[in-house]
Amino acid sequence: MWFQNEVTKSLCTKYPIIQAGMAGGVTTPALVASVSNSGGLGTIGAGYMSVTDLNESIKQVKKQTNLPFGVNCFIPEAPEYSEEQLNHMQKLLKPFKEELNLFNEGQFALKQIDLERQIETIIKERVPVCSFTFGIPPKEIMKELKKEGIKVIGTATTVEEALINQESGVDLIVAQGSEAGGHRGTFIGTYDESMIGTFSLIPQVVDAVGVPVIAAGGVMDGRGVIAALALGAKGVQMGTAFLTNKESGAKDIHKKAILHAEETNTIITSAFSGKPARGMANSFTNIMKEYENQFLPYPVQNALTKEIRREAGNQHNSELMSLWSGQSPRLSRDVYVDELIDSLVKEVEKGLLRLTRQ
Amino acid sequence: MWFQNEVTKSLCTKYPIIQAGMAGGVTTPALVASVSNSGGLGTIGAGYMSVTDLNESIKQVKKQTNLPFGVNCFIPEAPEYSEEQLNHMQKLLKPFKEELNLFNEGQFALKQIDLERQIETIIKERVPVCSFTFGIPPKEIMKELKKEGIKVIGTATTVEEALINQESGVDLIVAQGSEAGGHRGTFIGTYDESMIGTFSLIPQVVDAVGVPVIAAGGVMDGRGVIAALALGAKGVQMGTAFLTNKESGAKDIHKKAILHAEETNTIITSAFSGKPARGMANSFTNIMKEYENQFLPYPVQNALTKEIRREAGNQHNSELMSLWSGQSPRLSRDVYVDELIDSLVKEVEKGLLRLTRQ
Repeated sequence: MWFQNEVTKSLCTKYPIIQAGMAGGVTTPALVASVSNSGGLGTIGAGYMSVTDLNESIKQVKKQTNLPFGVNCFIPEAPEYSEEQLNHMQKLLKPFKEELNLFNEGQFALKQIDLERQIETIIKERVPVCSFTFGIPPKEIMKELKKEGIKVIGTATTVEEALINQESGVDLIVAQGSEAGGHRGTFIGTYDESMIGTFSLIPQVVDAVGVPVIAAGGVMDGRGVIAALALGAKGVQMGTAFLTNKESGAKDIHKKAILHAEETNTIITSAFSGKPARGMANSFTNIMKEYENQFLPYPVQNALTKEIRREAGNQHNSELMSLWSGQSPRLSRDVYVDELIDSLVKEVEKGLLRLTRQ
Repeated sequence: MWFQNEVTKSLCTKYPIIQAGMAGGVTTPALVASVSNSGGLGTIGAGYMSVTDLNESIKQVKKQTNLPFGVNCFIPEAPEYSEEQLNHMQKLLKPFKEELNLFNEGQFALKQIDLERQIETIIKERVPVCSFTFGIPPKEIMKELKKEGIKVIGTATTVEEALINQESGVDLIVAQGSEAGGHRGTFIGTYDESMIGTFSLIPQVVDAVGVPVIAAGGVMDGRGVIAALALGAKGVQMGTAFLTNKESGAKDIHKKAILHAEETNTIITSAFSGKPARGMANSFTNIMKEYENQFLPYPVQNALTKEIRREAGNQHNSELMSLWSGQSPRLSRDVYVDELIDSLVKEVEKGLLRLTRQ
């Protein structure tokens, strides 16, 4: 069967289908558990989560599934910036806050990610899989995870990043093509040169590394799953495809925006977080575009725009929210997770028949 | 068999594999004829060709093959620019010319494409296939081609462009993903929003149109062919994969650059022609990057840089040449065309077996 391979063996899932660890409230326990219960690997997007929230989220997922799931962590960074840059950006963001009736100018909370304590929680709770974005984990953490038998998934946007991941000892590598929604996982070189399309990225990464490769970026249906396997990947990771599902915690207005979008509606912007990410263009990204060189480094820019994003969400104002989406919104579906995965599996089976009958 | 479908029926070829009509001397009669003799569709890149040259090229191809081949034409544009802009660009280009010992400042020949006479030649010579880039052909031309039984292939980089192509009456649509080397076929909207990865573009175009879709951008081997078919395409178009072949007219230094390149080495630049195209970054593209908004419209910029490109080629100076390449240079092969196509067909057959055995 197409779904029995190194990835399903490694992750102990039925299908080699991973739900991307989208941060910012998308990965509700219901979403994560539904993906795992449907045969994929659900993933808690722990990126910006406090240890308390992560702990609670893991407990909730466990209440809803006995099957394997994962947690995605961000590799923390130490941002460098001046008070002047900070004040300048706060001035630039002020009109957006005013539009939303937010008048707490100057206040912002820069919560640093406590990766070590996140990992402690993951180990204590015996989460079976841990994935990383924005770099490879420190050696000590990798050693601990391995010792505990936790499978580790790395993220790469280039062949070089894939090789560094392999060297670090990850079990699987997600190769993220330029079509992917949300943050670019790029951690070496410039964002520009790392915008490699999935179709080009997968076979070149597969040829370079020995560990199984998971294709991400543009995978939305059975056609995408077969294409990913054909290119040499052993599984797929899907973000946008799950974001519009009923169980996802994305705001309704975000889901609707994707469900009605065209493939040309997304852009890459660093305006929300300080790191390049793909989402739908709106007033915020259009206006902020001209200040591209003035954004504060991640995660400071993220902290600065946090209230704007949250309040815009509360006010159903899609013009000032981050509307992460990949380049295949026309293929998105407003369904329950189990319906998506069931359809996808049927599509793969039909597709494989069609291919070999041809 | 995987290769018997609407595309091979329409084009009367053995395989649904089209060699892209690369302009600028790459598509020698030997290359075009070898592709056709190996079961694909060879294509003369007539983009910048005079009618005399096109005529000669067609005659040479016919001497070397009895099988179908095609001609790719550019839809001409009427560029608007001022004398001031022209002088400014000539000043910017002067240092490159001096580096190459070219001292004919101010001279440049703007040959307009004579599409009507190109089409006359194609009809007179009974070329079986005519493809178009940069837009759809005028209605009169489409009518004539149809009347003569010549198959017409259009190029689209978005769903909207595909729909316009379908409306115009083309027989097949090449959907060109962002991975593709050389010129973007984009003719509606901005280049930025039309940079859709092949993995996202193909299924969304396939869902939107009724005519068969050909996948372009990142297709280099059997894996790519199967992936393209899985995504719903009925065939593939390959440029870079043929450019490094023995029969290709690309300069050796260009071939070598691709054969040794990494996937992160290409960029999109309008510096050579005035239209965005993907090629390897070099001194010329790096230096000209900062004048991005000052390039003259196509084809004027192309005419202005012509001597630089030609002389750099003659002097084996890869820093000042246009080194068109897609995003999969690691998959390029220094082989004869028949070896490439034979390998590719074997790879497809093995790949299909592997997929269904899994």
